[in-house]
Amino acid sequence: MNIPSSDKPRIVIVGGGFGGIQLARALNGEAVQVVLFDRNNFHTFQPLLYQVSTAGLEPDSIAFPLRKVFKRSKNVFFRWGEVLRVVPEKNLLETSIGELSYDYLVFATGSTTNFFGMKSVAENAMPMKTVSEALNLRSVILQAFEAATLTPDQKQRQELMTFVVVGGGPTGVETAGALAELKKHVLPHDFPELDLRLMRVFLLEATPRLLNGMSDGSGINAVESLQEMGVNVLLGAAVKDYDGATIHLQDGSAIAAKTLIWAAGVVGQGVEGVAKESIVRGNRMKVDEYNRVDGYGNIYAIGDVAAMPNTDERYPNGHPMVAPVAMQQGQLLAKNILRMTKHQAPEAFRYFDKGSMATVGRNRAVVDVAKLRFTGWIAWVMWLGLHLLMLVGFRNKLVVMINWIWNYISYDRGTRLIVRPFRRDEQKT
Amino acid sequence: MNIPSSDKPRIVIVGGGFGGIQLARALNGEAVQVVLFDRNNFHTFQPLLYQVSTAGLEPDSIAFPLRKVFKRSKNVFFRWGEVLRVVPEKNLLETSIGELSYDYLVFATGSTTNFFGMKSVAENAMPMKTVSEALNLRSVILQAFEAATLTPDQKQRQELMTFVVVGGGPTGVETAGALAELKKHVLPHDFPELDLRLMRVFLLEATPRLLNGMSDGSGINAVESLQEMGVNVLLGAAVKDYDGATIHLQDGSAIAAKTLIWAAGVVGQGVEGVAKESIVRGNRMKVDEYNRVDGYGNIYAIGDVAAMPNTDERYPNGHPMVAPVAMQQGQLLAKNILRMTKHQAPEAFRYFDKGSMATVGRNRAVVDVAKLRFTGWIAWVMWLGLHLLMLVGFRNKLVVMINWIWNYISYDRGTRLIVRPFRRDEQKT
Repeated sequence: MNIPSSDKPRIVIVGGGFGGIQLARALNGEAVQVVLFDRNNFHTFQPLLYQVSTAGLEPDSIAFPLRKVFKRSKNVFFRWGEVLRVVPEKNLLETSIGELSYDYLVFATGSTTNFFGMKSVAENAMPMKTVSEALNLRSVILQAFEAATLTPDQKQRQELMTFVVVGGGPTGVETAGALAELKKHVLPHDFPELDLRLMRVFLLEATPRLLNGMSDGSGINAVESLQEMGVNVLLGAAVKDYDGATIHLQDGSAIAAKTLIWAAGVVGQGVEGVAKESIVRGNRMKVDEYNRVDGYGNIYAIGDVAAMPNTDERYPNGHPMVAPVAMQQGQLLAKNILRMTKHQAPEAFRYFDKGSMATVGRNRAVVDVAKLRFTGWIAWVMWLGLHLLMLVGFRNKLVVMINWIWNYISYDRGTRLIVRPFRRDEQKT
Repeated sequence: MNIPSSDKPRIVIVGGGFGGIQLARALNGEAVQVVLFDRNNFHTFQPLLYQVSTAGLEPDSIAFPLRKVFKRSKNVFFRWGEVLRVVPEKNLLETSIGELSYDYLVFATGSTTNFFGMKSVAENAMPMKTVSEALNLRSVILQAFEAATLTPDQKQRQELMTFVVVGGGPTGVETAGALAELKKHVLPHDFPELDLRLMRVFLLEATPRLLNGMSDGSGINAVESLQEMGVNVLLGAAVKDYDGATIHLQDGSAIAAKTLIWAAGVVGQGVEGVAKESIVRGNRMKVDEYNRVDGYGNIYAIGDVAAMPNTDERYPNGHPMVAPVAMQQGQLLAKNILRMTKHQAPEAFRYFDKGSMATVGRNRAVVDVAKLRFTGWIAWVMWLGLHLLMLVGFRNKLVVMINWIWNYISYDRGTRLIVRPFRRDEQKT
């Protein structure tokens, strides 16, 4: 694929998410050749995808061109392509745009939606892990309302206007909150013909609490906030089946809803050619404390796809699948690769947990930092600030900030466009 | 389709472009029922589509939700659907979402790309009349560069990096200028591996001059500006055939280029059921000075799809297909319909030409107002100001302005994303 030959070691990184770009950035300008692969030509800021789905942000403001991250770089080469498989015994990566040999290979492939093997749910529910999926969901939500205006049948209307979010993690909580705000502030003006009281938002979580990664207090606060906003929070509610019209729960009850939003979990995004023995629970690759994949000498994995069990008493089954872990691992791996090229010993990884947060809606969020817990307006401002800070690119920060200020002042969500209508029989790409 | 019955006259408007929304806005709150149809749930600000194609603006900032235009309105009903045909003898419109009767019917369907019957061009060239088409073109341009990095063959590279714009009207001029700026300021940093001198931009126009609707001086200025920016301007160059790789011109010459951007002309977007006798040159509906379609009593047409010949000595073949004509006709037709419902005589249309303008690039534009002609920086600022003014929605104005300021200061185009890769064998939707 026309990568210049070089006498420096070649590090191939698969995936331009939080971990991948952190690693490539830290290797930029160093005495190594870096080839970064991604199936998209942009980095996606996944924490804000839910705002694209709910018409609060344009997709272009949370995506950042990967070539722009490495513009003018002399040693980082970006390649837009799909990785097909790795052939470890040949140090070779097969991709949709050709083969490439490597000295070091790093999987930063992230995670993909976990439907827990439920075929009917995979076929009929809307996932929200990519920009395309977020745009499809935006179309589906708006299309449901357009369809609701066409029918005089109240029962049909209610089914169209019922949105069930499954999964009580940050994404599920944030999506349910955003839908409640659409119901309250935006849709009544857009659809004066419809009785918006028919619209219902459910949040289903299989365990007994929300935000399992956070403190008990934050979980309880999220439930209370969502309930105040009109969301039906059902805890201990596990989905069994969904045919596109009715959601059947494990306890035998059912909810009639045309839209099911699936935020119930993720699994590692594996790569063909990695030995089965190296894969652990959640389809993650087992790595040692240097992020080296079990059984290989020069293959590494960082971020969501990597599981580093039994190295840290806090995380016996591996670290949480969140951005800070990926970024810290990317940072350290860059340092370690450079050390290894100089025949120095690598350093072991230790996660520095800065805390976690989730927003529920306007002026409402929960933040856990060390032993401290923040809620309400102050937590919400912390959430906004940190997300602006993490967003890649100054233009994106600016446009997102303008949108947030605008949405806050006007109680509006500006981008409710059906650019490409979603048809359920089409492929979800 | 569940439109409330009413004792007021029902005016059905097909198309939410400049003319259609102007008309519906002017009828908002009046003693009539208005139903506005569009195949999109948003209004598209077509003059800036070329900036979406060339990665300067996000699509969401030039599209505006039609329901938001009429939020809280009690007498304007929006319906998202495709119009199939009209049955004039029954005062009935057949659509993809059902039938609807009307008292007055107004076609504001605009125009569609004119390939002048060349099938090979229609199949292989990229049009740019809708948001989807503009996004496809953005993908195609970026994909061409990604492909160019993969081949060591200089000839192949050059074909991939050659962009031919056909049509010397404002859209063609603006697109060619934007491509020249991408070549100069953006792509060299993104693709340090590529020799950007291989990139070529052509602008082909079949007549002997650019910007036919404008003064001679403006046409000449546009040629000079584009040439200074490195665009190959070919006048009197008519396309005969394009197979996706080579453009054959009428004079026998040929250009090897993987991307052909077609901005060479438009025809009226007709509707089935309108008598052939009412259709004139350019597939437009012949209307009288009240915009009534020839041969019908209660069917009207405004904007691009309407041709009003022989009523104005300046425009013997009908008015130019530009936004101000559509808006003024929409405005007057609203007034006339209200007059007719009160049994008053309608007023005849007379176009007030405020002038015309086109931008070529950074600090370069041409503006004709009455007998005055502006060029350079002052014309460019006028162009920016007027387009911001005409853009629907405060949020859109703000985001577009921020992007323009950002692009101006940074010499950058922020949104070079391939969100949905374009595949030539797929339908262009």
